[in-house]
Amino acid sequence: MISHARHLQADPCIIREVVATALAEDIGPGDITSELCVPPDRKGQGQFVAKEAGVLAGLEVAEECFRQLSPAVTFQARKQAGQSFESGEVLAEVAGLARTLLTAERTALNFLQRLCGIATLTRQFVGAIEGSEAVIVDTRKTTPGLRALEKAAVRAGGGQNHRFALYDAILIKDNHICIAGGVGSAIQRARHGASAHLKIEVETTSLQQVQEALEAGADIIMLDNMDPQMMGQAVEIIGDQAIVEASGGVTLDNVAQIAATGVDLISVGRLTHSAPAIDISLELRA
Amino acid sequence: MISHARHLQADPCIIREVVATALAEDIGPGDITSELCVPPDRKGQGQFVAKEAGVLAGLEVAEECFRQLSPAVTFQARKQAGQSFESGEVLAEVAGLARTLLTAERTALNFLQRLCGIATLTRQFVGAIEGSEAVIVDTRKTTPGLRALEKAAVRAGGGQNHRFALYDAILIKDNHICIAGGVGSAIQRARHGASAHLKIEVETTSLQQVQEALEAGADIIMLDNMDPQMMGQAVEIIGDQAIVEASGGVTLDNVAQIAATGVDLISVGRLTHSAPAIDISLELRA
Amino acid sequence: MISHARHLQADPCIIREVVATALAEDIGPGDITSELCVPPDRKGQGQFVAKEAGVLAGLEVAEECFRQLSPAVTFQARKQAGQSFESGEVLAEVAGLARTLLTAERTALNFLQRLCGIATLTRQFVGAIEGSEAVIVDTRKTTPGLRALEKAAVRAGGGQNHRFALYDAILIKDNHICIAGGVGSAIQRARHGASAHLKIEVETTSLQQVQEALEAGADIIMLDNMDPQMMGQAVEIIGDQAIVEASGGVTLDNVAQIAATGVDLISVGRLTHSAPAIDISLELRA
Amino acid sequence: MISHARHLQADPCIIREVVATALAEDIGPGDITSELCVPPDRKGQGQFVAKEAGVLAGLEVAEECFRQLSPAVTFQARKQAGQSFESGEVLAEVAGLARTLLTAERTALNFLQRLCGIATLTRQFVGAIEGSEAVIVDTRKTTPGLRALEKAAVRAGGGQNHRFALYDAILIKDNHICIAGGVGSAIQRARHGASAHLKIEVETTSLQQVQEALEAGADIIMLDNMDPQMMGQAVEIIGDQAIVEASGGVTLDNVAQIAATGVDLISVGRLTHSAPAIDISLELRA
Amino acid sequence: MISHARHLQADPCIIREVVATALAEDIGPGDITSELCVPPDRKGQGQFVAKEAGVLAGLEVAEECFRQLSPAVTFQARKQAGQSFESGEVLAEVAGLARTLLTAERTALNFLQRLCGIATLTRQFVGAIEGSEAVIVDTRKTTPGLRALEKAAVRAGGGQNHRFALYDAILIKDNHICIAGGVGSAIQRARHGASAHLKIEVETTSLQQVQEALEAGADIIMLDNMDPQMMGQAVEIIGDQAIVEASGGVTLDNVAQIAATGVDLISVGRLTHSAPAIDISLELRA
Amino acid sequence: MISHARHLQADPCIIREVVATALAEDIGPGDITSELCVPPDRKGQGQFVAKEAGVLAGLEVAEECFRQLSPAVTFQARKQAGQSFESGEVLAEVAGLARTLLTAERTALNFLQRLCGIATLTRQFVGAIEGSEAVIVDTRKTTPGLRALEKAAVRAGGGQNHRFALYDAILIKDNHICIAGGVGSAIQRARHGASAHLKIEVETTSLQQVQEALEAGADIIMLDNMDPQMMGQAVEIIGDQAIVEASGGVTLDNVAQIAATGVDLISVGRLTHSAPAIDISLELRA
Repeated sequence: MISHARHLQADPCIIREVVATALAEDIGPGDITSELCVPPDRKGQGQFVAKEAGVLAGLEVAEECFRQLSPAVTFQARKQAGQSFESGEVLAEVAGLARTLLTAERTALNFLQRLCGIATLTRQFVGAIEGSEAVIVDTRKTTPGLRALEKAAVRAGGGQNHRFALYDAILIKDNHICIAGGVGSAIQRARHGASAHLKIEVETTSLQQVQEALEAGADIIMLDNMDPQMMGQAVEIIGDQAIVEASGGVTLDNVAQIAATGVDLISVGRLTHSAPAIDISLELRA
Repeated sequence: MISHARHLQADPCIIREVVATALAEDIGPGDITSELCVPPDRKGQGQFVAKEAGVLAGLEVAEECFRQLSPAVTFQARKQAGQSFESGEVLAEVAGLARTLLTAERTALNFLQRLCGIATLTRQFVGAIEGSEAVIVDTRKTTPGLRALEKAAVRAGGGQNHRFALYDAILIKDNHICIAGGVGSAIQRARHGASAHLKIEVETTSLQQVQEALEAGADIIMLDNMDPQMMGQAVEIIGDQAIVEASGGVTLDNVAQIAATGVDLISVGRLTHSAPAIDISLELRA
Repeated sequence: MISHARHLQADPCIIREVVATALAEDIGPGDITSELCVPPDRKGQGQFVAKEAGVLAGLEVAEECFRQLSPAVTFQARKQAGQSFESGEVLAEVAGLARTLLTAERTALNFLQRLCGIATLTRQFVGAIEGSEAVIVDTRKTTPGLRALEKAAVRAGGGQNHRFALYDAILIKDNHICIAGGVGSAIQRARHGASAHLKIEVETTSLQQVQEALEAGADIIMLDNMDPQMMGQAVEIIGDQAIVEASGGVTLDNVAQIAATGVDLISVGRLTHSAPAIDISLELRA
Repeated sequence: MISHARHLQADPCIIREVVATALAEDIGPGDITSELCVPPDRKGQGQFVAKEAGVLAGLEVAEECFRQLSPAVTFQARKQAGQSFESGEVLAEVAGLARTLLTAERTALNFLQRLCGIATLTRQFVGAIEGSEAVIVDTRKTTPGLRALEKAAVRAGGGQNHRFALYDAILIKDNHICIAGGVGSAIQRARHGASAHLKIEVETTSLQQVQEALEAGADIIMLDNMDPQMMGQAVEIIGDQAIVEASGGVTLDNVAQIAATGVDLISVGRLTHSAPAIDISLELRA
Repeated sequence: MISHARHLQADPCIIREVVATALAEDIGPGDITSELCVPPDRKGQGQFVAKEAGVLAGLEVAEECFRQLSPAVTFQARKQAGQSFESGEVLAEVAGLARTLLTAERTALNFLQRLCGIATLTRQFVGAIEGSEAVIVDTRKTTPGLRALEKAAVRAGGGQNHRFALYDAILIKDNHICIAGGVGSAIQRARHGASAHLKIEVETTSLQQVQEALEAGADIIMLDNMDPQMMGQAVEIIGDQAIVEASGGVTLDNVAQIAATGVDLISVGRLTHSAPAIDISLELRA
Repeated sequence: MISHARHLQADPCIIREVVATALAEDIGPGDITSELCVPPDRKGQGQFVAKEAGVLAGLEVAEECFRQLSPAVTFQARKQAGQSFESGEVLAEVAGLARTLLTAERTALNFLQRLCGIATLTRQFVGAIEGSEAVIVDTRKTTPGLRALEKAAVRAGGGQNHRFALYDAILIKDNHICIAGGVGSAIQRARHGASAHLKIEVETTSLQQVQEALEAGADIIMLDNMDPQMMGQAVEIIGDQAIVEASGGVTLDNVAQIAATGVDLISVGRLTHSAPAIDISLELRA
């Protein structure tokens, strides 16, 4: 069964590299305290316990933190990516050498709290537009170096991903339009030179630009910072000829109103640039 | 003059590496849109404009994003790290090839908005305890891979740094104490094996542990999740014999009350794990 | 003027890394012969001379080989990417320390000969279908590690690029179809889980599969190893509802016939996996 | 028994690095199609089937592609490096998670087809001089980044390797001779400064240079672009005093004539710069 | 039991990286001799035998050399880090493929001989001050790239480590003092800007500077190149107010006299920059 | 003029990498002391002054340490690689930002003192055999990671280099002989499989093995741990038929006697594994 077809976790290779960098940053030449206070063969075990409610994401990243320090660690997930949890719930259990647990603890939590924060905020936006046809999508406003992980957390929260980066879709913004001499001519240039495998999205700020974009054959039309009324008019103009994306200043307060205009996608920068961390602790017994 | 002795910027080598990783993540095999829509020799210029008030940090990181794409870029800072800005103020100006500006824009802003967010939140905590002797310090609850940058942002906001990582100070936590068989014996083990150049900090949760820590000669005593009253008693017990750090659940609402207990350091995890981004945009003219 | 909007060169960052790896492979701990026979301050100059006719690509990669050994090298291109050259023509001139020229020579030529080989073969395919509406595109059958460079060489030869890699477009192949239980259900799964920014291409081997793909809303339909007659029928069925790509066993002998069926794209693996090198030499005077 | 003493495979460490780079290039942030269409726990198996006759090389590189994605893959070689195969023969079998097989397929084939192409062309050259004492050797005209793999493929085809790179033998070329002021003085300089452990080879274009090289004590004398008659004379002059290498413009048409002159080594650039790929496919059943 | 609390081995991650670099340096594209002379499946075993007396360190580094070439190697230590050995004693036994043993042999010995050399020299210094309260410590005068390994060897010899690097303690030297305008003002600047978690050490060359350092609250006072008499006076002045470190020109001849002055730490550069290698051989039977 | 044809410095690319690793090791997240005590724009200058006599090597490595921290540093060498210096002589002058000088100082000196130590010891060995025809050569007993630098220092001291690593020459040792079943059969195997561009050296411990090596056509014969009398006999047997290398237990006391036997090469492990550092200091004025 693959009803949740798209994986809710980032690519394992990327997780491996990002975790290696993070562990090196925190451990450097060694966890002095644990080396001094903990016998090398002492075993321990721990539980990841939620201190507030949220949506799970990034548990496999936390697991990788322990695994890179010692392949002998056992790690048992109690929840899956995308599931909700309450305050007090156990999310996972880990066991192994006490030093390994203590040394990896902070790095594992730093990932887990941040990624759950993103999944939780995404779920709130998704919930706020329940019943509409619109989909919540992320942006490129991610933490430098953690994009693949954060985009997986958005998926875990029920959102979809926008383009991953500058290389996998064409998104013509105001500056590109200005340099190319208008919406139409910018799209033509892109269409002429681009691989046929790439969709062309264009940013518009007026109904006239929407019209030009349609005529030039844009695949996706972004309505940038329009008010709901103008959005509704744009949606009507566009009909089935292109996908419509609302963007700019989206909050939990206004997202339902935006969804009601009939747009297909609503992109929300704050999912990744401003989600507060979810409080989770690792309770160890050595 | 070096009254602000400690640098408010991260080490340039680290900035270089982190920026290289971030640009690779976003650009990959190329910024298709700009390659298609912008002539290779077109010049452009832009202004970083604040969309809300805040405290500046990370401008040198933003600059590095442009510089790595093209050494020919000119970048003029209009504000310095640690300075406050209002909504609408220009923080910096940048000029160079239009493609360079467009390709680096998002990565530069992702760094700048996050780091200003941290500096701004730090400044709020610092402001909230003005008049006290206490100092706001950060934690290891930083974004994986960005610790050096985020710790510099804390300094820019007027905070001080706690230990950088697991390798540059000894911090004996509850689990270490439990394994070692008590506060006193944990400190003794650390004292016996550690380099004489390292300070020993110990986490305590009761006045009895505070007493044991004092007797074992701890250099710094952390009061973990104590209420203000118990904190005050601990401060009194400790006197000048050790540095005192308050930790756990510190918010803008309770930080002044904590400072009033007489502690030396107040560590605040949310400075780095939950600071919302400051809204800044790059306004380009090509 | 950006009529050839899409850059005919690979991203400079990728070129830099690939060249660094190649130079390290060939130079290792040092070019013993030149160190022994050439005084360190001896100057030299050289001309890249074509020994057979072809189409230029990769000159900027050759230049980077010299530049990484010594920034003081001067390099003058006499032809641009995409231009044809005859046997005996000078493609570029280089001057600097004689040791630098001798040490970088082979690596520079290894890149240049291979990339010109690809551009030249691409130009032959493009020429063979002149007058048709079809476009020659490449595949992922590239030399491991050199994809970005080889795809730029295809563009220099007048071809277009297919998807860059596994991450920037959805291409549902026979095995995916088989596992998903048919063309329609495979497309539905992809459509349901994928970002709205990605096009969906599906591989078909029969007119019935073409029909299913159309009904499921594929953006691009690949006709895999069909004979020209069946291709023509497929083109007719599809009409304007999707982009049509011919694939499999395309040679200079049969490409015109394929183009005549009315397909939009013709993908040719041998552009990158079997293009013979173009003979070019570096004639030095020290 | 080590009659084929020299390994027909490249060093495993190099294979590991090259494969890691190639997989990263193709997979990047993820194989979207397989993630969307293939359940994570679905098993599959496949056969590498030759679509034309050839000589095997690089199977261990193909295997490494799967292994890096999942250590749980099983891989059974049916042929060994250096063995011939017919069209339709199964070269190897692989089994594991269907996603792993699909994601690694193209990269594995890109290596295998290229390396078999080199081994096959080498075998043709070796066959063309059967009965002579001469040996076919490769050059430094290899694909940047893949030299160790391509040199192993030449060995698998029955050729021998020339020097690996600029650092493991001295090869004095026309430019070195010109700068040093003649063949004799170039060899003397090299002899004087070089480690006693390195052989000295010199490139000659006339019988007079051959004579000078002999007198200066060259270990290997390369006859560069001489016609067969002059080559024969050079071989006679040199006798047992040095190893003789023929180089320049060697093809399947003229190689037998060159071998008949009595040279010891015949170096052939096209083994590595222009060998067409051998058609091999991976037939999967999931 | 953790009486020898601090680990006598370097961090395994660092060992892994350093060994990988060293093996790459020595093996490069392959151990030609072993590939030519040793059948791939031939087994072998060997003993590390001391050719002179010494103190053991770095055995785990030697083991890693074999392990990286083949995980199937078995390695049995016969002595532990910090133990003394006599000439003729077996330190460890290793078994595996003969090629693996031959290829890793030199790199393993290069590490082992150097690290045993450091442990042995350290033990001599420690022995020379037996009975005193002073501790022998190392410096930053280590081999570039090997610091963590060499500092572990010092610990194995019975010494303690000084600060690891520029980032984990404050050490104010003559130049810093000169720029800051005196001992007192340098310490004040450091105290003002530094994390409260870092100790401040200051270098002094006169009793007046010692006095200033004390008044400014230095945690550690280094007596740089003072004669024993002045050292004694400094120790008296300082009393319990700071840790005292003797530094400069310490030899086996004068170290006892220095220890007798009552200093706490004696730092010795030659432990790491001039320790002669201990002669150890690997005796193989294949 | 290239009378000192072979470069006395290591390859600049290798120097760059090794220095980058060394600086990262010592600086990590920053030189705290200098950041706290030295204003960012303060200029300084310094002189490298010899504290004892020696032979110069590695000055370009020291220079690279400063240059990587700041391209604006000026560095003036006062002596060249291979030149002798007396105690008190100035070897080089450096100027730039005071922080740069202070931060790079220790790493630069760590390289310089070690490499001068090697050059100086080599010069002593070379001096001890003055008047003989023999040449002092190094071994693979180098510091892991620093081989290219240390081999350059041997050249600066007047020695020559033995093979660089396992990949650039064939050296058949006792274990290879034993496995292959004798000197003759080992050489035959090597000759049969090896590239014609590689010399074959064989280790012998008896006159009978010398005889076998000669008959099998070894290019270089190593006399391993023979006494001078047997060496003399071996030299007589070999005559001009091969190069002769003495190896094992060579000291300043016995090297002249060994040279007098008429061997061509004398390899000395202690040049690189046990050379004491030369005392050099950097005297700064800020």
